[in-house]
Amino acid sequence: MSFRERIREVLEERETNLILALDVYGESPSEILNRCIDLLRKTQRFICAVKINLQVLLPLGLFDGIRGLIKEAKNYGLPLIMDLKLNDVGHTNLQVSTYIFEAGFDALIANPFVGWEGGLKPVFEKARSMGRGVILLVYMSHPGAVEGYGQIVRDPEDGRAYPQYMVFARKALRWRADGVIVGATRPEKIVDVKKILRDEVPIYSPGIGPQGGDPIKAMTSGASYLIVGRTITQSSKPTDEAKKLRDLIRPYIT
Amino acid sequence: MSFRERIREVLEERETNLILALDVYGESPSEILNRCIDLLRKTQRFICAVKINLQVLLPLGLFDGIRGLIKEAKNYGLPLIMDLKLNDVGHTNLQVSTYIFEAGFDALIANPFVGWEGGLKPVFEKARSMGRGVILLVYMSHPGAVEGYGQIVRDPEDGRAYPQYMVFARKALRWRADGVIVGATRPEKIVDVKKILRDEVPIYSPGIGPQGGDPIKAMTSGASYLIVGRTITQSSKPTDEAKKLRDLIRPYIT
Repeated sequence: MSFRERIREVLEERETNLILALDVYGESPSEILNRCIDLLRKTQRFICAVKINLQVLLPLGLFDGIRGLIKEAKNYGLPLIMDLKLNDVGHTNLQVSTYIFEAGFDALIANPFVGWEGGLKPVFEKARSMGRGVILLVYMSHPGAVEGYGQIVRDPEDGRAYPQYMVFARKALRWRADGVIVGATRPEKIVDVKKILRDEVPIYSPGIGPQGGDPIKAMTSGASYLIVGRTITQSSKPTDEAKKLRDLIRPYIT
Repeated sequence: MSFRERIREVLEERETNLILALDVYGESPSEILNRCIDLLRKTQRFICAVKINLQVLLPLGLFDGIRGLIKEAKNYGLPLIMDLKLNDVGHTNLQVSTYIFEAGFDALIANPFVGWEGGLKPVFEKARSMGRGVILLVYMSHPGAVEGYGQIVRDPEDGRAYPQYMVFARKALRWRADGVIVGATRPEKIVDVKKILRDEVPIYSPGIGPQGGDPIKAMTSGASYLIVGRTITQSSKPTDEAKKLRDLIRPYIT
């Protein structure tokens, strides 16, 4: 079963499209691991996947603590996404994505800015050969994203000017990406990207809560999955918060 | 002393501008660590710094094996650059760069595409407060780099069209970066970038050897430092290879 099928299956089973972003801090690797495992246990019924960033991977270690966390998520039947925002040269990308997939991650996030030849091509090939997924950044959620993702570029295909994120969305189609990231802070961009991707490539949307994105607006604009971090991880009642969000969004899942 | 002063001091002392990129593979973390330490020992007299990528950091672990490698490099008086190509949102970037600097790295590499507000601003602030460096990607060395770094973009400052890498070079000046990366595979881009940066921001150039860049051409085009990986790491005689390169380039150091 492909990554796309796996995550969709969990979405349908649990009637939730929430992906928990484990952006967790702590004084020591063991404190971080324990907080992650505790959050997973408390929220697993209301989420369909887990996303991990470098701020958790680096202290836990790919060959150490992270393996325990991956095992825990798998026990709950949850796919894991490694949010590396990979953007290196091919031989490094290949080695890094091999490590990530062999550790048990089901998908990774990469930056299409790095290009295909000697860039992301080996990552897609490795993912295909292992039944894993590649999700591409199309428009990030922070204010400064406008400088890169929002800039106007000349598309070499037809020589005309387009916003960068529209060029990225077309690349996601062409490269047959398993998903794209578009921030919930810019719902009008989700609408634009959805017009290009239709139902070919699902949209993953981060940036609700502290960053200011509205989850329902993101859904009605075309998002398939919502990525939620601090709203849940920094709540004193993560279970209640996850359930509340799941219930709020459930009617909008398509 | 700032990162820029430290690395310059080693360059002058050892009369070499070579930075060893430890792109090392192995069957186990200990094999990778041993190979890295062996390469350091064999080449340290002919290099002025060490660059480490995720393919070494992930297996070794930031809180484990990498500390031994950092200690070893420091014993040889060599500054260390962590080549993360960081391009995440601010709160993740801040936590990741804090971990990297606290582990002992003297500088990290980031992607200016992510923008300033809620992007790289906290990374520069953290680096300044700890006396560390931030090096920005301006034009990478692989073929697909042309898709992003080589694309034509509209600069919002004056509304005119420029190549992306020229916009990045101007950002490096404005943000007071400690260095920029421009691939040796495109010496004409080094010339363009040098015209903008003059002696304000040094150019670090990877991509010689397997990737096809010519070290002397990179130097005469305006590079200050050459990043060399597989030419040395995959050689059966790394000491000889490093010495040969150092001797070749020495007359061109300015």
